[in-house]
Amino acid sequence: MSSQKPSIPRGTRDFGPEKMIKRNFILNTIQTVFKKFGFLQIETPSMEQLSVLSGKYGEEGDQLIFKILNSGNYLENINTDFIIENHKKLTPQIAEKALRYDLTVPFARFVVMNKNEITFPFKRYQIQPVWRADKPQKGRYREFYQCDADVVGTNSLLCETEIISMITEVFQKLNINDYTIKINHRKILQGIASAIGKDGQESSLCVAIDKLDKIGIQGVSKELLEKGYTDSEIEKLLPIFNLKGNTLEIIEQLKIFLDENPIGNKGIEEILSILDILESMNANFQNITLDLSLARGLSYYTGTIFEVKVNNIQMGSVSGGGRYDNLTEIFGLPNISGVGISFGVDRLYDVLEELQLFPSSSEQNTQILITYFDQEGFRYGLNILPQLRAANISSELYPDSSKIKKQFEYADKKKIPYVAIIGEEEMIENKISIKNMLTGTQERYTLQELILNFSRN
Amino acid sequence: MSSQKPSIPRGTRDFGPEKMIKRNFILNTIQTVFKKFGFLQIETPSMEQLSVLSGKYGEEGDQLIFKILNSGNYLENINTDFIIENHKKLTPQIAEKALRYDLTVPFARFVVMNKNEITFPFKRYQIQPVWRADKPQKGRYREFYQCDADVVGTNSLLCETEIISMITEVFQKLNINDYTIKINHRKILQGIASAIGKDGQESSLCVAIDKLDKIGIQGVSKELLEKGYTDSEIEKLLPIFNLKGNTLEIIEQLKIFLDENPIGNKGIEEILSILDILESMNANFQNITLDLSLARGLSYYTGTIFEVKVNNIQMGSVSGGGRYDNLTEIFGLPNISGVGISFGVDRLYDVLEELQLFPSSSEQNTQILITYFDQEGFRYGLNILPQLRAANISSELYPDSSKIKKQFEYADKKKIPYVAIIGEEEMIENKISIKNMLTGTQERYTLQELILNFSRN
Repeated sequence: MSSQKPSIPRGTRDFGPEKMIKRNFILNTIQTVFKKFGFLQIETPSMEQLSVLSGKYGEEGDQLIFKILNSGNYLENINTDFIIENHKKLTPQIAEKALRYDLTVPFARFVVMNKNEITFPFKRYQIQPVWRADKPQKGRYREFYQCDADVVGTNSLLCETEIISMITEVFQKLNINDYTIKINHRKILQGIASAIGKDGQESSLCVAIDKLDKIGIQGVSKELLEKGYTDSEIEKLLPIFNLKGNTLEIIEQLKIFLDENPIGNKGIEEILSILDILESMNANFQNITLDLSLARGLSYYTGTIFEVKVNNIQMGSVSGGGRYDNLTEIFGLPNISGVGISFGVDRLYDVLEELQLFPSSSEQNTQILITYFDQEGFRYGLNILPQLRAANISSELYPDSSKIKKQFEYADKKKIPYVAIIGEEEMIENKISIKNMLTGTQERYTLQELILNFSRN
Repeated sequence: MSSQKPSIPRGTRDFGPEKMIKRNFILNTIQTVFKKFGFLQIETPSMEQLSVLSGKYGEEGDQLIFKILNSGNYLENINTDFIIENHKKLTPQIAEKALRYDLTVPFARFVVMNKNEITFPFKRYQIQPVWRADKPQKGRYREFYQCDADVVGTNSLLCETEIISMITEVFQKLNINDYTIKINHRKILQGIASAIGKDGQESSLCVAIDKLDKIGIQGVSKELLEKGYTDSEIEKLLPIFNLKGNTLEIIEQLKIFLDENPIGNKGIEEILSILDILESMNANFQNITLDLSLARGLSYYTGTIFEVKVNNIQMGSVSGGGRYDNLTEIFGLPNISGVGISFGVDRLYDVLEELQLFPSSSEQNTQILITYFDQEGFRYGLNILPQLRAANISSELYPDSSKIKKQFEYADKKKIPYVAIIGEEEMIENKISIKNMLTGTQERYTLQELILNFSRN
């Protein structure tokens, strides 16, 4: 057999056992909170019709969608002149399916296709990988997990507060304490555009100020100039980014800025209602900040928007979301308002790693490895093994007749906390010696004592 | 906005909340058993290099691999004559990546690429979707989950018995009692080929008898004739399928049939050792049957092979596996023996559905929905909600001010077992009425009583 040196595609990753335990800690934490808040899980196929995804993520997004080659002879019935002409025209002819780019568009499709079976308001969560043909770089992968929760079919502002409460609980369970939940409202941004004389042109405003962190006020000004904003309009805008004080104080200054603009004031009203509901819930909202420079890139948001940033760490936002009013309309179901949140698992992983917040993984592992010196010890171990497991103690018997040193090395490398030793004395006394691999102490138990001790752990 | 009628690709499925709860019941059951037996989880990328997958699943398998179109201008630097000539030649030029076809080849690749970090014997489990461009039909999908556990780096027969024990425990936890674990050994099949005069030609024998269930003895005979077996060779073979008795009795007859064939007798010896180890473990092996017509399609097996069939149900095998000696050799790592098992989640789902063995899903759901008559009740509910959740009671407050009837319908459709009712009296008494949605009974509690009652559940 000829041998080949294997590799994995650029931007993808293998997850070995240690990484899986850490990732599962994050995913299970988020999932537990989603469930406690009454969200139900769904899964959608990895493949969608290319037509379902195309045109939903902007022109750049379309390029980043991974397309799947039709099976069979995909060149049959294709005009060959056409092939040579242009790969963009050829693609939809030879690739009818594509890999999921996010969880939001497939969710909108799911809601529309299942609207008669769904109980609205529909609270769903979804934890699945997505794929993007982005240029791979540190922290950016071509396959990564998204963790989304959305409520659709209600415009109650309770949903916004539920999202804030879920964020708070997830971060508390992950032991991340120093973080900021930035909130803003698309209607406030609309009002700001109107107040500086650019009524209805808030979308270029959003795109520009979304980059404030990266390119600074000068960069934003330059981009707005290029987009047709005048110097005087930009000058009017800039004070917005210098408002000082707590959320309520900023709102007072914002009200003056917006004057009587009805849409902008509607946005303010909703933000105030959300804070009011949180107060009724005795929620801790010291981490919440109204950030007027928060815009979020995606075009479908229409109401409150959120982003979470872990403080004092070099890292973009670890979570984000917002309210959208027309997401399902493109698939033929108008007037379904929704609000959602997405947690970035890969970034949370890096944050927990940097802050050393991952719990010890030893509980996730085999608890006891049974080791032995000879064939008789192996037989003795065979008898004990199923009894430990019957008591729900995760355990293993070393499979090969190897030196005891090698068996201990296995336990050590696999971080198994306890090693059972079956020697001659143990078999005579009908006992088992247990070595604590962390402290090095050793004790001898009957099987019954052993089970009592360890099934309590 | 123009609207489009959405659909999903043929052979793929959406999983709504009810199906997810049932699927998770199966997946969690299998995962719990894998962990208890000391298997550690890994995940590999959905995409592999096409070259890693090609040639591993036979010519038919190669056709069923989903290929991913290269991103960017994939036609650049492609000779256009070449394009028109043959789609099979074009494919590797425009599609360097492909979707995982099973979990075994990616696992072999993972072991080879991580051989220096892995502690051998390496016990891994993996639960991920795989994709095949098969013709969709009942029970056959283009995207489906596999649940695999493998041990590599040891040829200890303890591993075979561990797999049998895991199968037994999974089925017990799923409440499936009437099933058969068929076992056989590739070396026995080799011995049989040799005994009828077809030394070294067991692979065509395996392919043919693998179809015995579907095409019967006549069909198998016909296929063997086509493959160059003579009538007299086939006549010598047939008695093998008519051996009667329990496993030990069949082995006695088989020994006579194999005469002194050393390879065949090595297979028998291993089967006997496995039964002996199981006996030492006091394992229940009443469900195990030596089935000499079990061959398994895949070519890489070299030792014991397994298949599990649920009795009295019209359904193929729900689990299968075996020992392989050379799986990693193609990637440059020879002499790593391994043995593995795969559970078919979709078939198990259908079996549990048919036998009505799924547990009630209500525990997976919101436990309490808080309902109310007016804005004052909503405020009262806002105060209660976070206190229920702080006690780990999964709960919701109905988000919209709707008629109480509509709120109850929501609880009913979502199968929420308890509804809290906040009326005028409740607020005056500072209590909460709880209606049991199953029995219709209603009781009034203080918040403290409510929490005590429900956090115990």
